[in-house]
Amino acid sequence: MEIANAVDIPVFAQHIDPCEPGSHTGAMLPETVKASGAVGTLINHSEKRMILADVETALQRASKARLATVVCTNNAAVSQSAAVLSPTMVAVEVPELIGTGRAISKVQPEVVTRTVDLIRKTNSSVHILCGAGISSGEDVSAALKLDTEGVLLASAVVCAKDPEKILFEMASAAVREK
Amino acid sequence: MEIANAVDIPVFAQHIDPCEPGSHTGAMLPETVKASGAVGTLINHSEKRMILADVETALQRASKARLATVVCTNNAAVSQSAAVLSPTMVAVEVPELIGTGRAISKVQPEVVTRTVDLIRKTNSSVHILCGAGISSGEDVSAALKLDTEGVLLASAVVCAKDPEKILFEMASAAVREK
Amino acid sequence: MEIANAVDIPVFAQHIDPCEPGSHTGAMLPETVKASGAVGTLINHSEKRMILADVETALQRASKARLATVVCTNNAAVSQSAAVLSPTMVAVEVPELIGTGRAISKVQPEVVTRTVDLIRKTNSSVHILCGAGISSGEDVSAALKLDTEGVLLASAVVCAKDPEKILFEMASAAVREK
Amino acid sequence: MEIANAVDIPVFAQHIDPCEPGSHTGAMLPETVKASGAVGTLINHSEKRMILADVETALQRASKARLATVVCTNNAAVSQSAAVLSPTMVAVEVPELIGTGRAISKVQPEVVTRTVDLIRKTNSSVHILCGAGISSGEDVSAALKLDTEGVLLASAVVCAKDPEKILFEMASAAVREK
Repeated sequence: MEIANAVDIPVFAQHIDPCEPGSHTGAMLPETVKASGAVGTLINHSEKRMILADVETALQRASKARLATVVCTNNAAVSQSAAVLSPTMVAVEVPELIGTGRAISKVQPEVVTRTVDLIRKTNSSVHILCGAGISSGEDVSAALKLDTEGVLLASAVVCAKDPEKILFEMASAAVREK
Repeated sequence: MEIANAVDIPVFAQHIDPCEPGSHTGAMLPETVKASGAVGTLINHSEKRMILADVETALQRASKARLATVVCTNNAAVSQSAAVLSPTMVAVEVPELIGTGRAISKVQPEVVTRTVDLIRKTNSSVHILCGAGISSGEDVSAALKLDTEGVLLASAVVCAKDPEKILFEMASAAVREK
Repeated sequence: MEIANAVDIPVFAQHIDPCEPGSHTGAMLPETVKASGAVGTLINHSEKRMILADVETALQRASKARLATVVCTNNAAVSQSAAVLSPTMVAVEVPELIGTGRAISKVQPEVVTRTVDLIRKTNSSVHILCGAGISSGEDVSAALKLDTEGVLLASAVVCAKDPEKILFEMASAAVREK
Repeated sequence: MEIANAVDIPVFAQHIDPCEPGSHTGAMLPETVKASGAVGTLINHSEKRMILADVETALQRASKARLATVVCTNNAAVSQSAAVLSPTMVAVEVPELIGTGRAISKVQPEVVTRTVDLIRKTNSSVHILCGAGISSGEDVSAALKLDTEGVLLASAVVCAKDPEKILFEMASAAVREK
């Protein structure tokens, strides 16, 4: 709640568990995330993979709690499988590029293109992000040119000497492409 | 291999891990299953749920090893999500009916109907089974009348006093419906 | 932090992950728990079991973050195994009694006695709690008479019509036994 | 069973699940392992880590099935914790050395020494192995000089050009040290 109060931008949680309130000690409920001021949550992040049935349950639970959802995936086929479950967004990230600074949008654009194709024909209401190695405004431009609507990233900003500068560069690139 | 040699019917494994041959001590490889004489494998059984990305990888690996695949699911939405990944079959089982003797095909036919609808419109090459509580020829008939092509079951036969009798009853029902 | 600020009693977290700060999206770090005002944490709760090596790492990490630790266990042998790792406390809970209202201290006192024996001879600095079904002042008395130093409980208070009354009854029993 | 029949040496399984016969599709039962001709099993291998309570249950189950047990661990403290549960053997392996060819017995002998000390004073009936990076007769000698009774290894032999030669070299070293 302190984070949500401290910033003006929408805050997403890193994970929710697919549980109802009850006997789930140590679990993160969608209701808790919502009450903390978050507007949405990641689901199935590469560092917090979930069982297929739990991805579906978590999406249902998040929807009831009025949380936007970003399901993270590792390739085009899994992205299509996730899109069937109607999350708000799907974010495709090639595992071997995560944290490398080598951007998916430049090094493996065909994964992004195929993901966009498969999701569009399966569930056109799902927004598409890509991630893994995104570290410059140029990488963001490349991602948007591939017909995604945004990127998912962490290390490039979190570990940057000047996070504000790199964020501004990326945001400017995004504005230019729209 | 002994099981596969001892019987004339096609044998399926209970599970495969989504691993390449290599450093995966304790894992069950598709190649091992194939070499043991099995023609296919269950994936994501209700007692052996898998991470979404692993379901997809296991399907790819099984396909390379020329194993038929049955992905088990817990409801219609998850069934559709699995069907996107092109397994040979999807078997929908309502968790709360498993092992109860109360058949999905009679107690919750709407789950089966919805699963058939969603899979047909998503990937028509996928064969559809249903399971959970199937324990008589009548249950099998009900399942086939819902437009599935077969059933998945264990306890009704394994725990039966006279397994041969119940199997024959079910097989006869299946033949009648075709 | 809001909870820790709102109450005068020491607050324990439900779980920590055995991770260093870094690439662990969705994980709960000891440092986060500490910064939120908690003085300790449960580890390996019955609803959040952990891998053996992770129990040890979590204990090391909690110790560095100056958090008290309660490792939950399911029987006497596992309690002794956990005590070797020098948590602040071990709480033994028989799984089949959890949430039943049938108290371990009355229904299976031999599990508590054996746990106390094994822990005392292994690592006498570890404090011993017991839990599962504890739902009255009498159950608390019985637990302390078995030479434990306290109880672990949830549903008996959380789900009570009058939580204050039952808590007061239990606390009074504890004071009487000391 | 084919493997056990094909060789004269005792065969160990790579893993068992902590399950009773019953509804555990995809699980590896101790009884199955025993019936296949194995005399023992690894438990909690670095590539198949187990929940603390499951390590204890698996040991109980293996004991009933008359299987010898090797619990794999990652450091001295976890080794002591495992030794409390009375496996036949504990095999300590430093994770970062596994598969590197840099032997624990030469690069981190203090881990082995500390493991031996802690296990000896906790449960003197447990046999002690060490592993990780063991790749020559010299590494085996170093391991035995540290008061272990053997080594655990895979890649150094499995991936060797001449497995027989390296195995013979290691066995000769072991005989010399005894």
